[in-house]
Amino acid sequence: MAVLPLLLALLAAAPPPVAPPVALSPGEIIAAAPLDAWVDIAASDLIVMELAPDRPPASKTGAGGKPRRVVIQLMPSPFSQGWVGNIRKLAAAHWWDGLSVNRVQDNYVAQWGDASEKKPLPGGLAVVPQCDYAVSGREELEKVFEDKGVDAITSAAFGNDDARARYERYWHDPYAQAAAFYHGWPVASSSDTKEKSSYWPVHCYGMVGVGRNMPPDTGTGAELYVVIGHAPRHLDRNIALVGRVVAGIEHLSSLPRGTGALGFYEKAEERVPIRSVRLATELPEGERPRLQYLSTESASFARYADARANRRDPFFIQPAGGADICNIPVPVRKKP
Amino acid sequence: MAVLPLLLALLAAAPPPVAPPVALSPGEIIAAAPLDAWVDIAASDLIVMELAPDRPPASKTGAGGKPRRVVIQLMPSPFSQGWVGNIRKLAAAHWWDGLSVNRVQDNYVAQWGDASEKKPLPGGLAVVPQCDYAVSGREELEKVFEDKGVDAITSAAFGNDDARARYERYWHDPYAQAAAFYHGWPVASSSDTKEKSSYWPVHCYGMVGVGRNMPPDTGTGAELYVVIGHAPRHLDRNIALVGRVVAGIEHLSSLPRGTGALGFYEKAEERVPIRSVRLATELPEGERPRLQYLSTESASFARYADARANRRDPFFIQPAGGADICNIPVPVRKKP
Repeated sequence: MAVLPLLLALLAAAPPPVAPPVALSPGEIIAAAPLDAWVDIAASDLIVMELAPDRPPASKTGAGGKPRRVVIQLMPSPFSQGWVGNIRKLAAAHWWDGLSVNRVQDNYVAQWGDASEKKPLPGGLAVVPQCDYAVSGREELEKVFEDKGVDAITSAAFGNDDARARYERYWHDPYAQAAAFYHGWPVASSSDTKEKSSYWPVHCYGMVGVGRNMPPDTGTGAELYVVIGHAPRHLDRNIALVGRVVAGIEHLSSLPRGTGALGFYEKAEERVPIRSVRLATELPEGERPRLQYLSTESASFARYADARANRRDPFFIQPAGGADICNIPVPVRKKP
Repeated sequence: MAVLPLLLALLAAAPPPVAPPVALSPGEIIAAAPLDAWVDIAASDLIVMELAPDRPPASKTGAGGKPRRVVIQLMPSPFSQGWVGNIRKLAAAHWWDGLSVNRVQDNYVAQWGDASEKKPLPGGLAVVPQCDYAVSGREELEKVFEDKGVDAITSAAFGNDDARARYERYWHDPYAQAAAFYHGWPVASSSDTKEKSSYWPVHCYGMVGVGRNMPPDTGTGAELYVVIGHAPRHLDRNIALVGRVVAGIEHLSSLPRGTGALGFYEKAEERVPIRSVRLATELPEGERPRLQYLSTESASFARYADARANRRDPFFIQPAGGADICNIPVPVRKKP
């Protein structure tokens, strides 16, 4: 009977047990990121689309339905600027007002524009050549990808050779020689020789692209779609990407799927009306979205990408040892 | 003036112009597949979930809404058979009847089961160990992956060394050493040595998995989810996969997103009621789904996978040169 009190005395004298460090989840890493790791998204880069309110009650006015606001961040230079310029003009002309979402194809895209294909476009839209689906020889991009070969995501995410060596086996991109984040955007690269390097934005979930007719047409930007399924990366370099949905994607991804070919709605009344599309700068100050993204050049993003590729938080038992670039979505939040 | 008739005479004498062959799209390849390339899915491998009808009219009975039937194909041996056996028992016990879809998280999963967490489970369910998330040393699987290294998808798809060599640069899987199709299912593999090879099913769009609590819990199969976004392959080998939705996924993927943490519905009335879940063999013959998948061992599938990775049909200008395994969805159709 003396053993137990002795044991207790020994335990009391011992230092308190040290709990093993608990690895943070990607969400916890985002929550812990310092203020200066977040980058404000300028109102001048945002487009705000208001769909007709959801689930109108029995009353024919539709009053009382939930608002459905979708916010799109336009892609920065050097990518797709011809189409982006057209989209700014179309929004400034209020061209999409009264048009509709016409196509929702499961595990693929939701698409909006002019179902009649008869509404005149505003003047002065650029005709953008196919070669602008990718860019080449940009010094800043080269710096991101330089000497990184197929390990570009790793390099961007981990920033040191040890980590790169540890993971290099799995950081492969099936669609390109390299993939990396460039000022918050997922970008792929092919570079048979350094002189011929080219870079292009990639079709991840939420990315917004430009519908077009058969080549050599490249589309104006009047017909747009957003990816709502597994990344359709076969579209990379075949269609222009012009931005991404940074808020409200659920208003497009949860729409009923169209039952016609390619997910087009078969009846006009199935289409979802667009009330308005505006450049955020045209909205009163108080109505502008105030959003931030986690800098892909920050230490917090490096830790986040590492955790996305190697979940070590308590729910997980087997870290993957890698990730594809579209499974590392860039965190976006409301500005606190 | 004599030149023109002469030219016409020459043209008339010339052989008719030969149009360059137009490459088929993946959809056209599927449509052209011979009957024997299609494999019937046995009713004994199908689970049929009937959700409450969509969009009930103002009448409180809900009568007149559209039926919402979701069909799930259970995974074959050697994968996840402990959980699959439990699911057969739960369906046979009509355990899910009256429960609900409780969670829909955008770009991730829709999940159903017992929101109360109090409904007693039927007796005799297996407790499946974590090691069953993957299998090892199966001869038939080894044959699929043998000597293929990171080119396993290529090998499965192209079946010859030339094609493999042509594409080998891009056929990488960021999450495993190899990925391939095995009797219609996407499978990944790691094999540091041949003796230690292991194989596991992967989290592509539409795959169905088993919700669980913290490890070492592995779940019973009573709480299920389906992937409705970009493949969350970090879940591979961390959660059991037990099947895939082969019809009606739009009834889950287009549900309103939950606004609570992890996409759980915050109010009980937001949950989507499950009318019934049945083994297809329990349904009258005329109500059983009659579905087929395109044999992943067929020449048609090889051509389809090639076309998914290298779109050469007229809309495309730049074949990708590769694809990730989840961007080659296995075609499923109603039996003609």
